[in-house]
Amino acid sequence: MDSHGKAHHKEHNDDVSTKPITLSKYSKRVELKTLLERSDGGAGLAGKRVVIGGWVKSSRAVKKDSPPPPPVASVHGGNHQASTTANISCTEMIQSKMNIFRKLFDVLSGGGKTYPIFDKSELAAQKAPQPPEYTLYLLISDGSSVSSLQVVVDSTMSTVPATQLMALGTCIVAEGVLRQPMAASTKYVIELEAEKLLHVGTVDPEKYPLSKKQLPLHMLRDFSQFRPRTTTVGSVTRVHSALTLASHTFLQYNGFQYVQVPVITTTGFGERFRVTTLLDRAGDKEEKKHVKEKDGFSVDTVTAAIKEKTRLIDHLKRSDSNREAVVAAVHDLKKTSDLASELEMKQKPKAATLVKPEKLDFSKDFFGRDTYLTVSGRFHLESYASALGKVYTFGPRFVAEKIDSARHLAEMWNVETEMAFAELDDAMDCADEFFKFLCKYLLENRHEDMKFISKRVDKTITTRLEATSSNSLLRLSYTEAISTLRKITTRTFETKPEWGVALTTEHLSYLTDEIYKGPVIIHSYPKAVKPFYTRLNDDKKTVAAFDLVVPKVGVVITGSQNEERFEILDARIKDFGFTTEKYEWYLDLRRHGTVKHSGISMKMEHMLLFATGLPDIKDAIPFPRSLGKANN
Amino acid sequence: MDSHGKAHHKEHNDDVSTKPITLSKYSKRVELKTLLERSDGGAGLAGKRVVIGGWVKSSRAVKKDSPPPPPVASVHGGNHQASTTANISCTEMIQSKMNIFRKLFDVLSGGGKTYPIFDKSELAAQKAPQPPEYTLYLLISDGSSVSSLQVVVDSTMSTVPATQLMALGTCIVAEGVLRQPMAASTKYVIELEAEKLLHVGTVDPEKYPLSKKQLPLHMLRDFSQFRPRTTTVGSVTRVHSALTLASHTFLQYNGFQYVQVPVITTTGFGERFRVTTLLDRAGDKEEKKHVKEKDGFSVDTVTAAIKEKTRLIDHLKRSDSNREAVVAAVHDLKKTSDLASELEMKQKPKAATLVKPEKLDFSKDFFGRDTYLTVSGRFHLESYASALGKVYTFGPRFVAEKIDSARHLAEMWNVETEMAFAELDDAMDCADEFFKFLCKYLLENRHEDMKFISKRVDKTITTRLEATSSNSLLRLSYTEAISTLRKITTRTFETKPEWGVALTTEHLSYLTDEIYKGPVIIHSYPKAVKPFYTRLNDDKKTVAAFDLVVPKVGVVITGSQNEERFEILDARIKDFGFTTEKYEWYLDLRRHGTVKHSGISMKMEHMLLFATGLPDIKDAIPFPRSLGKANN
Repeated sequence: MDSHGKAHHKEHNDDVSTKPITLSKYSKRVELKTLLERSDGGAGLAGKRVVIGGWVKSSRAVKKDSPPPPPVASVHGGNHQASTTANISCTEMIQSKMNIFRKLFDVLSGGGKTYPIFDKSELAAQKAPQPPEYTLYLLISDGSSVSSLQVVVDSTMSTVPATQLMALGTCIVAEGVLRQPMAASTKYVIELEAEKLLHVGTVDPEKYPLSKKQLPLHMLRDFSQFRPRTTTVGSVTRVHSALTLASHTFLQYNGFQYVQVPVITTTGFGERFRVTTLLDRAGDKEEKKHVKEKDGFSVDTVTAAIKEKTRLIDHLKRSDSNREAVVAAVHDLKKTSDLASELEMKQKPKAATLVKPEKLDFSKDFFGRDTYLTVSGRFHLESYASALGKVYTFGPRFVAEKIDSARHLAEMWNVETEMAFAELDDAMDCADEFFKFLCKYLLENRHEDMKFISKRVDKTITTRLEATSSNSLLRLSYTEAISTLRKITTRTFETKPEWGVALTTEHLSYLTDEIYKGPVIIHSYPKAVKPFYTRLNDDKKTVAAFDLVVPKVGVVITGSQNEERFEILDARIKDFGFTTEKYEWYLDLRRHGTVKHSGISMKMEHMLLFATGLPDIKDAIPFPRSLGKANN
Repeated sequence: MDSHGKAHHKEHNDDVSTKPITLSKYSKRVELKTLLERSDGGAGLAGKRVVIGGWVKSSRAVKKDSPPPPPVASVHGGNHQASTTANISCTEMIQSKMNIFRKLFDVLSGGGKTYPIFDKSELAAQKAPQPPEYTLYLLISDGSSVSSLQVVVDSTMSTVPATQLMALGTCIVAEGVLRQPMAASTKYVIELEAEKLLHVGTVDPEKYPLSKKQLPLHMLRDFSQFRPRTTTVGSVTRVHSALTLASHTFLQYNGFQYVQVPVITTTGFGERFRVTTLLDRAGDKEEKKHVKEKDGFSVDTVTAAIKEKTRLIDHLKRSDSNREAVVAAVHDLKKTSDLASELEMKQKPKAATLVKPEKLDFSKDFFGRDTYLTVSGRFHLESYASALGKVYTFGPRFVAEKIDSARHLAEMWNVETEMAFAELDDAMDCADEFFKFLCKYLLENRHEDMKFISKRVDKTITTRLEATSSNSLLRLSYTEAISTLRKITTRTFETKPEWGVALTTEHLSYLTDEIYKGPVIIHSYPKAVKPFYTRLNDDKKTVAAFDLVVPKVGVVITGSQNEERFEILDARIKDFGFTTEKYEWYLDLRRHGTVKHSGISMKMEHMLLFATGLPDIKDAIPFPRSLGKANN
């Protein structure tokens, strides 16, 4: 393996078109990636028999006309053009009322894209009581690749009605033979002619929240159990997965040992989550939200009203009413839905109020003392660095600050390193090379996904990653950064850039987006704006800490040389107003065999934002946890 | 890279003795591994100039006699034999009273090894007010390798007294030239002749808890910040690190995508830790333990008594008193130390008592509802498997059961996988191959550490790992296991092996240690002894679940095919007495596009116990969390 981890997961450039098909390990089918991510797109596989499985992404039905061909011969005979007379899109058949409402909502909210609200085939299909026999073209995805496979199914092959087979999200396991598509116009190199459906997992279209059309990411968040089925979230997950392996590979390749630091801790500071077994589960009863009312509407009645109004719009459209009537009905529905949002808002919990736990004695808690969720692995990691040299960890970090922003989660995952015998420069080198390695790794190993995300989310990501991975990052001191910002006359910052202030999001954004137009490392901050454990510089005013800041996202990596001198550390802990009692074990590292040491901490979700161009961190983690939100 | 991940971290067999020395990335020194784990042991590097850093593992001083040679010429001249006249071991000089007590305690507790309690040089050294000039031989470890490097230092090179340089745990950064050792008898192939000490981090021997001698692992647990400095814990950590990379490598190589499942959850069952911000930090005051008394002794007075008695024994030994007097004094000390243990026991928290949180309203908590630490990533993982096919995660799992055993921790880390389109057999194949891969990976990539652990902890580990990695594991059903156990007449089990009972530790141990003498997979358990989500077999009595059980340790991997049929899952949830309300999102996966799926869960710390032969799980994780114990 070369230093870029190329040997893993090469998704492209496997150019042997005669390569045999690899069966998926630990599941009885072939992964679509194996078929579709070959350099020939799978063309060389025509004639091979395979079992595939996946979920329907979109579908099309072609009615089979007179005379109904013998079920097997015709379907497998390959003379499809002959039997094709009517080409009906049946996809809309399975759109639920909920989905229609969503689409309406999207149109009205003016949020960029517009979608067709309905089409006539919907009505037509519903009028036909017994759909005739169809050849179904199902586009199937199994999540192993951004690409989908077209599966051709004869509707007589299954007892499940064609509309259900075609419904978005239906799970299909099919056995068949790969072939070049019949239709010359198709964009697919290969398709599967199904001979047997081994499994069908239907959806309930009335309740299935995903529509065929692209739903805005923020709407998907309420359905975290389903959102990986969308192409964008699927791609983002595969990129996330690649970043994880790349992190372990880079660090272990460079001599770091992985250390399992604890999630439950007694040290740490700031707003923390308490971990306790002192409270029984009486609270479970409170879990149900109380229905609030407004204007005489409760959530239940407003939901019923929305259903009724949606049905009306539906009817108006089908009966070819004039456009004005539809628009008016839609407007009315919009008002009701706003009310629904407001009611839902009311149900959201307010900021938690503190309760004096007079009756609680934490010496009787599970661990015999106060315990919290870790805010950082730094302290524990330092103790292992003071023995093993270079160590790292990857784990969840928790902050209970009551803020809700596009850059903050209550639970985030960090890659943290600590290196003995290392100074600030070493840590900056480590951050620089680690960051660039990750960018390069994605370009080389997640080509297809990056291409898709680039198309769907942010067109600039590929050039941004390329530019980043080939240059050393600019390094400037905090003092230089402030002086640069002070020279700006064309803009007034909300926080005036004066030496001593913490750099705000606005400052950082101006530096990276406007001035340097790329990632930079800012180092040597005033001691008051960085944690007590960062090493005091000789000027006694600044500390050996830095941030790697990127455009749009902000800080992706923080790092510092950490104080190895006992007296100074001890004094700094007290300066910050902490009691040294619970840091005694940490101070011990300076009492006995102290060593210069430095570390970095990469915020995985922020790195993913940079790599994908996603604007909100809630989409950069599968199950986001934020103020008032923990769905599952 | 081949499928065994060989290309990573090859620790041995790099046989180019002319290979240049690689500088450590991100720290200004050469890692000792680079020097010592070459096939020539470093011999080819003689004459090269390097900077190294590390901590003193042991030391020896050789007094330099008349006439004191010119500092540079003599030390670097290479004619050492000439200046060597007295060979005094100075190591004992730095043994603190605490360490002496420890060593005594070890002798008395009869726990295997005995150590010399003191030697005459200790007294001799203390009598010498100004130690003369020495050549110091410091054995240095930097944690990159199980091996240490001998560094030869002239005592005049530093203002730090020789005794402090020699103290166990002192941190040294030295620049010098590599050479073949002068003394022919030495076991080292190469040593460093120091020319400059760039950094010395001293220890305070009065307070430094580690002794040069091998401390029992259970005593080290109270000093988790220092225990990686012991060779055994260092090796175990490197093995742990290798298992982590091997897990990611195996799974991603086999097409699994990493998914970040949350630590804070609303689902799950059993004894859980609550996560809350509703309680303020008034509890902090309670953190101090109350001193309890017994027989008129408090912890403070008994500590003083131990010191006094230790001093007495010391004195008796130095004054060549008869053996009986020493034994009597030692016996007396033992009684006092027992008392100390008892007092410490009393200070341990009792099982936590539940307090009714009348005043707490969890709808006002941070997330607006009850939240807990996750007990399993299974549910969340299933939702991603139902979109991406094969997924895995690696994260902390928490159980708040009030048990304290050598196989249980409150915080343990699991590798969990979930595979769509997979049945029980697939999951068992996955467990089998994953398990064997890990065994093989350690044999090939952690050769030196495994050799050391084998010597120090369990001589059978290497043959055990070899046997395991080359054969498919035996698979038997629960019914067969019970029937086998029922045939045993030579032994009465505490729980009678009857169909329907959960297999106990005793049963599992008998099967793996006595009957099959190796790891086995037991599958198809009665439905009542496995979780509700495991798939019901056609017999309606058993479920498609299995355990991979290994000798001495017990279950290392659990796995199951998970119920994909909505009605059956729904009924099983109710059978177990749970409300389906908080499982609605999980049931959704069966409502919409359901698929057969299976998964496994490997307990990382249990795997480490199997691989290393360590008897207690508290030594298989850096910072153990167990009932009444969370040190940092």
